Amino acid sequence: MAANPVMDYQTLLDRVHAAVKPLIGAGKVASYIPELAKVSPDHFGIAIVDLQGNVYQAGDAEIPFSIQSISKLFGLTLAFHLEGDSVWSRVGREPSGTPFNSLVQLEQERGKPRNPFINAGALVITDMLLTHHAARGGAENAMIRFIRTLSDKADVGYDRAVAESERLTSHRNAAMANFMKSFGNLNNDVNDVIEAYCRNCAIAMSCVDLARAVTFLANQGAVPWSNEKILDANAAKRINALMLTCGTYDAAGDFAFRVGLPAKSGVGGGIVAVMPGECGICVWSPALEASGNSYAGSVALEMLTSMSGRSIF
Amino acid sequence: MAANPVMDYQTLLDRVHAAVKPLIGAGKVASYIPELAKVSPDHFGIAIVDLQGNVYQAGDAEIPFSIQSISKLFGLTLAFHLEGDSVWSRVGREPSGTPFNSLVQLEQERGKPRNPFINAGALVITDMLLTHHAARGGAENAMIRFIRTLSDKADVGYDRAVAESERLTSHRNAAMANFMKSFGNLNNDVNDVIEAYCRNCAIAMSCVDLARAVTFLANQGAVPWSNEKILDANAAKRINALMLTCGTYDAAGDFAFRVGLPAKSGVGGGIVAVMPGECGICVWSPALEASGNSYAGSVALEMLTSMSGRSIF
Amino acid sequence: MAANPVMDYQTLLDRVHAAVKPLIGAGKVASYIPELAKVSPDHFGIAIVDLQGNVYQAGDAEIPFSIQSISKLFGLTLAFHLEGDSVWSRVGREPSGTPFNSLVQLEQERGKPRNPFINAGALVITDMLLTHHAARGGAENAMIRFIRTLSDKADVGYDRAVAESERLTSHRNAAMANFMKSFGNLNNDVNDVIEAYCRNCAIAMSCVDLARAVTFLANQGAVPWSNEKILDANAAKRINALMLTCGTYDAAGDFAFRVGLPAKSGVGGGIVAVMPGECGICVWSPALEASGNSYAGSVALEMLTSMSGRSIF
Amino acid sequence: MAANPVMDYQTLLDRVHAAVKPLIGAGKVASYIPELAKVSPDHFGIAIVDLQGNVYQAGDAEIPFSIQSISKLFGLTLAFHLEGDSVWSRVGREPSGTPFNSLVQLEQERGKPRNPFINAGALVITDMLLTHHAARGGAENAMIRFIRTLSDKADVGYDRAVAESERLTSHRNAAMANFMKSFGNLNNDVNDVIEAYCRNCAIAMSCVDLARAVTFLANQGAVPWSNEKILDANAAKRINALMLTCGTYDAAGDFAFRVGLPAKSGVGGGIVAVMPGECGICVWSPALEASGNSYAGSVALEMLTSMSGRSIF
Repeated sequence: MAANPVMDYQTLLDRVHAAVKPLIGAGKVASYIPELAKVSPDHFGIAIVDLQGNVYQAGDAEIPFSIQSISKLFGLTLAFHLEGDSVWSRVGREPSGTPFNSLVQLEQERGKPRNPFINAGALVITDMLLTHHAARGGAENAMIRFIRTLSDKADVGYDRAVAESERLTSHRNAAMANFMKSFGNLNNDVNDVIEAYCRNCAIAMSCVDLARAVTFLANQGAVPWSNEKILDANAAKRINALMLTCGTYDAAGDFAFRVGLPAKSGVGGGIVAVMPGECGICVWSPALEASGNSYAGSVALEMLTSMSGRSIF
Repeated sequence: MAANPVMDYQTLLDRVHAAVKPLIGAGKVASYIPELAKVSPDHFGIAIVDLQGNVYQAGDAEIPFSIQSISKLFGLTLAFHLEGDSVWSRVGREPSGTPFNSLVQLEQERGKPRNPFINAGALVITDMLLTHHAARGGAENAMIRFIRTLSDKADVGYDRAVAESERLTSHRNAAMANFMKSFGNLNNDVNDVIEAYCRNCAIAMSCVDLARAVTFLANQGAVPWSNEKILDANAAKRINALMLTCGTYDAAGDFAFRVGLPAKSGVGGGIVAVMPGECGICVWSPALEASGNSYAGSVALEMLTSMSGRSIF
Repeated sequence: MAANPVMDYQTLLDRVHAAVKPLIGAGKVASYIPELAKVSPDHFGIAIVDLQGNVYQAGDAEIPFSIQSISKLFGLTLAFHLEGDSVWSRVGREPSGTPFNSLVQLEQERGKPRNPFINAGALVITDMLLTHHAARGGAENAMIRFIRTLSDKADVGYDRAVAESERLTSHRNAAMANFMKSFGNLNNDVNDVIEAYCRNCAIAMSCVDLARAVTFLANQGAVPWSNEKILDANAAKRINALMLTCGTYDAAGDFAFRVGLPAKSGVGGGIVAVMPGECGICVWSPALEASGNSYAGSVALEMLTSMSGRSIF
Repeated sequence: MAANPVMDYQTLLDRVHAAVKPLIGAGKVASYIPELAKVSPDHFGIAIVDLQGNVYQAGDAEIPFSIQSISKLFGLTLAFHLEGDSVWSRVGREPSGTPFNSLVQLEQERGKPRNPFINAGALVITDMLLTHHAARGGAENAMIRFIRTLSDKADVGYDRAVAESERLTSHRNAAMANFMKSFGNLNNDVNDVIEAYCRNCAIAMSCVDLARAVTFLANQGAVPWSNEKILDANAAKRINALMLTCGTYDAAGDFAFRVGLPAKSGVGGGIVAVMPGECGICVWSPALEASGNSYAGSVALEMLTSMSGRSIF
């Protein structure tokens, strides 16, 4: 991927922002969690953080939003960091080909989720983290602390109202968790896993925070400003590969085709993406397309790679 | 992807060849087509062709083998070249999540195959090409001619014995073709489509030929030595994205995770891969792992990206 | 099942005919075969033949119509008559739970159809009969001859226009036949099987003919007027059981619940039913409900069992 | 069904008992609930109760065992008794075609179980009963009281150890209950439904008790000795139809084919069956065939209908 010398990141973001404006608000804000349904569809923010730590932004890039499934990326990273390749004995790494909360596949594959970015997979990862931290004397907030390290921001937290709203509507997640427990692929109490999972989904961060938090994946696994090694280069590359094939629900093929960057989306309307060797990116706009990805957000990323000629392919 | 200055391509191939030797022959040669079952599992060849046209090779890199599903890549490229984005009205671009010849998904999605790299998708592409060429006065060998252009080799042809063997055992492909016809997604006679499809699968090429034939995908869509533009840069990038998410049957996620390069495999034991901006690659070893990809071949590609530190991520 | 002394069959049929009149024509005539789409939805006929051979009828009970899937009952009976229990090595006897022409189940069960009353199962039965008769020196019309024996009517034949129309639109059946051949569960040429199958579906008979043709199933396997033993008592009972659980597509549970008689329906609008120990029944009305059974016909049968207090339960 | 004058019920049971002896113990005792695994596979009991209340029995016909899924028959009867046809708005009446605790079908059909005899359907029925009785001021033991009425036995109760063992291993049921709740097809708290369901499964009864308890279904819905009308004749006939098509898990077609009687089985090894107009039947032997029905029990019922020439067909 050759850098395009003609256009700097700020100019790029401004052009993308201008071009995407007519599309902001098109699609549907996630409504199955009442608290999320309250967010206005008219927000749009985008941010880039390069390997020197420089921040470029446009629109509502500093407004915190519910990161939702983007937390699955941090959960997987933390589990991979702590447990290494043993993670893959309990969760696969293939695209699912079906909606993110499907039970069909889980039944066919006897309780082993296809990948860590569908809900079932993230529940297993959450279970691993609970076991790990319980064995080390409590650790309610290990995930929050980890994200603070990655994003270099001390006050990241979760929104209690969203977490509670999430928990009250999580019957399908409870179905999957019980189902995996029936196959022996969940070690902790189902309710504890669901609660931790809902809390992680309810973490609130801005585009700038999130772009910063994923920059280590563009930097061979090391946080650029602290040089802290989160993952080795090989592991970081693998997380990127997983994002590309599984990061955007059952639109991953289409997303790779159109955008061509490793990315992870959430139903709060956020999408993080990685340009290996260059930068971390985050875009946010709450209205979603049918697969659950931000509509304006994914178009913005497509514009960004088309205008800049940058992608991994 | 930064080039690794320490190791040149020839050294890299020699080291990979040496390291993979103990694994050559592990796995199973495809047996459902009698002609393929006759090939010795002990072959191994690998070749790289860079953007200057330089050829690097090791092992049996000049022995022709049956390209099988690698022909799907050339079929899609030709259809995309001729028809552009209208291709996607009849075939999707999502990973299938199920075996390459599954009918279940085809039923759920009412006759529109998930992507052009599963058999059903390739049958639709074949149907498009038949219609296109029939309208222009015959053209039995359009595909062969196209591959000759890409590979700069005048004597590429197909193996009649393999094509016939293939046709006689193609009941499942006939099932899928009839099924798609029942949904209106096949315009030509089913037998004509099957015959053309089997002929394309039976094309015989060597690693060197194939590495050369895919180099345009590493060069923004242009054949390096002739500067002939096969696809525009954007389209070439998209074909690469499709290979990454769908090119290696239902092991695509795992392959992206381990190898990290766009690739397309065939049950003849060949795998082509692309390093954007750098080179085309082909590896061949006939014994397959459970998903239908060459076992030694995919390990060799994993070694190649690990040893060189090169991948798209 | 105690006979209801109050109401004789003729009175019963007249009352059912009067009561069902407002519903005749509701639903949709099968349109996927052009020839069937030409039939007026306003027909309604019903006939009963008791074990003494007495015929009771109302409405259009002597107009021939396309028996379609009712031929599956005769095919199975003939195969069971000729081959006995070895039939069950190639076809199951469980309700399918999915539409009559689904390929999903066939894939899960590796080419062995769920039961002989779904299309896939009937194709296997047709294949058995082809093999059987081919080995005995031709026998194009074995099925026709068999039905003539059962119905005591010399001029039963098939409608060539319907058979041809059927064959031209049988891509999905061709898909299933090829699919089963790929699993080794079809011995004859796919085209030969499809052609024989389409011819059997195109047999034309009236309600009176059909009621007569199934009376042996109410008489422990013997044709009442000739005393010819078609099946032993145990086998006849088993065919009835299969009709009850599998005879009316994926509405079999509902049909058993509402009507409570063994029955086999066809998309031509006919339904045959059996009252063990009492009589054979046939009703016909071309407009179908969503599962492919005659709408007015199934309501008429429900009325018939409710009014008479007769059913097997 | 003509009564066979040659053989009285006692002679029939003695012959069946003698003939089935070599098969007792073949198969596997249910092991997923630890308490059930403790039962010896060598038990065999059988009982018939006719419409005059006469009891015929052989073997261990007075030893209580865990009725398990046979409770689904009593649950449905009670719900149908209380709510009438509105039951069918929340549960279907088609054979499922898949294992009794599958989630796949539940997903395809958006939370409405196929029939009341698979676990998901019984959970919905349990939910209906909880709502009904809660609205009428508590009623923990409504089911127990109902069964006491049917079986004319005052001391029917449930086994607390089995109920608790059941509850602790009911993750898959919890998965289904949560899943249906996510579709809005469960009104009470998931844990309350599971607990009531497990208690019902843990009811302990003998063959004699159970044969007596189902005799009303052979008697047009009325308990013979008390003349209490539980269901009208039409509803009783419909329950019998449901048992025939859905009562023996995914072997219902085979069971109808071989036995030819409406029946409901449980993984405790019991099977109840009904001869309309004649008698209630119960057989028990703990070792199961692959579908979860008592192996010796189902063979015994097949012998019983073959030897007597009695069945509904």
